[in-house]
Amino acid sequence: MTGKLYGVGLGPGDPDLMTLRAHRLIAGASVVAYPALAGGDSFARAIAADVIPATAREIVMDVPMTVDRAPAQAAYDKGAAEIAAVLEAGEDVICLCEGDPFFYGSFMYLFARLSERFEVEVVPGVTSITTCAARAGVPLAARNERLTVLPGPLPEAELRSRIEGAESVAIMKVGRHLAKIRSVIEALGLTDKAMYIERASLPEEVVCPLKEAPEKAPYFSMILLVKGGDPWL
Amino acid sequence: MTGKLYGVGLGPGDPDLMTLRAHRLIAGASVVAYPALAGGDSFARAIAADVIPATAREIVMDVPMTVDRAPAQAAYDKGAAEIAAVLEAGEDVICLCEGDPFFYGSFMYLFARLSERFEVEVVPGVTSITTCAARAGVPLAARNERLTVLPGPLPEAELRSRIEGAESVAIMKVGRHLAKIRSVIEALGLTDKAMYIERASLPEEVVCPLKEAPEKAPYFSMILLVKGGDPWL
Repeated sequence: MTGKLYGVGLGPGDPDLMTLRAHRLIAGASVVAYPALAGGDSFARAIAADVIPATAREIVMDVPMTVDRAPAQAAYDKGAAEIAAVLEAGEDVICLCEGDPFFYGSFMYLFARLSERFEVEVVPGVTSITTCAARAGVPLAARNERLTVLPGPLPEAELRSRIEGAESVAIMKVGRHLAKIRSVIEALGLTDKAMYIERASLPEEVVCPLKEAPEKAPYFSMILLVKGGDPWL
Repeated sequence: MTGKLYGVGLGPGDPDLMTLRAHRLIAGASVVAYPALAGGDSFARAIAADVIPATAREIVMDVPMTVDRAPAQAAYDKGAAEIAAVLEAGEDVICLCEGDPFFYGSFMYLFARLSERFEVEVVPGVTSITTCAARAGVPLAARNERLTVLPGPLPEAELRSRIEGAESVAIMKVGRHLAKIRSVIEALGLTDKAMYIERASLPEEVVCPLKEAPEKAPYFSMILLVKGGDPWL
């Protein structure tokens, strides 16, 4: 009998926003796996730190953040091979995933490499977009409203045209793209409707109108743009 | 001291997909509030049933599903007044919300009525979109991909133009709009990329390619359309 691979969403960062299922799977794990910035920390591991058994074996995937894809692909190849060896030996592997595994999550690269050979269960997690909405006090979408999720690295012209045709918009991964995104929103006359959120649900969280946002944004930051204004009173 | 209102996301249906924070708040509640279909069941209450203390007082908002908005607005007015009376008396109220409170959730109508007068905390929950993706084995979005969330009741021409310009698409609230949505997807030549999911995470869950979907869909059903095909191998 081969083992089963679990891709477990941990939510946005506050360990209290982990699901009961995630908590139970991690607490019972004999092997956990997670990505880390090469040579650095793992946000996923940090979220689950108090739940991982001291006896659990840990498979760390050092993923370099380079424009060239090959080094990161090699890191996932190596991680997948290590995980496959554990599964072949009949043990389950709990893969820790920030947010939700299938929503801009790196678990999909392991899924692509292992799901044909092994049983895989994906446990969804609370995403950053609804966490940011909750923290900013901004309902995302109601009734027949549309929601568009855009990554901040998209080119300026594309961001502009996508925001123009949208209703509610969540712009992910703002980071070093903040100035570009800000100028697009300003040009569209939407700055007054935009909220800026960084590190949602963590102690160092920042929530403010975009016009009061800092000049520098971390990778884990988001802008919410809710054009609708019908509170259905 | 007035009480605090909590809008607590319960996730998609499986009580195990509730967050630790939601579980703790509900288990310690003295007053819970939730919407119910007028004269019928409350899905939110059903998800939390095993956690609600037997001693808790329950405020039920009977919300009629009519095209005319006025009866539902009146139901939220009445519910908000009952909740306000409890908060004024110094007790907290835990409002139970299917999915996430600010993602197509009715909690936003209470938020609009009460957030200026009382302290409100929104606890995000796992949404149906990432749950459906997990259950269907379809990663929603990676890297710089866009995700568009469309409600099924949108007019056929609008659905068509929104899907045409999109990458990954989640179509919510399929229900009685299934035939219309199916014909749009068929006309765009995308049927082979579409998955159908109903009652995700519940025992009666259905997951299949759209071409094998039943003729009739319940309200809690979704179609995922993931055009991307880059597993980054």
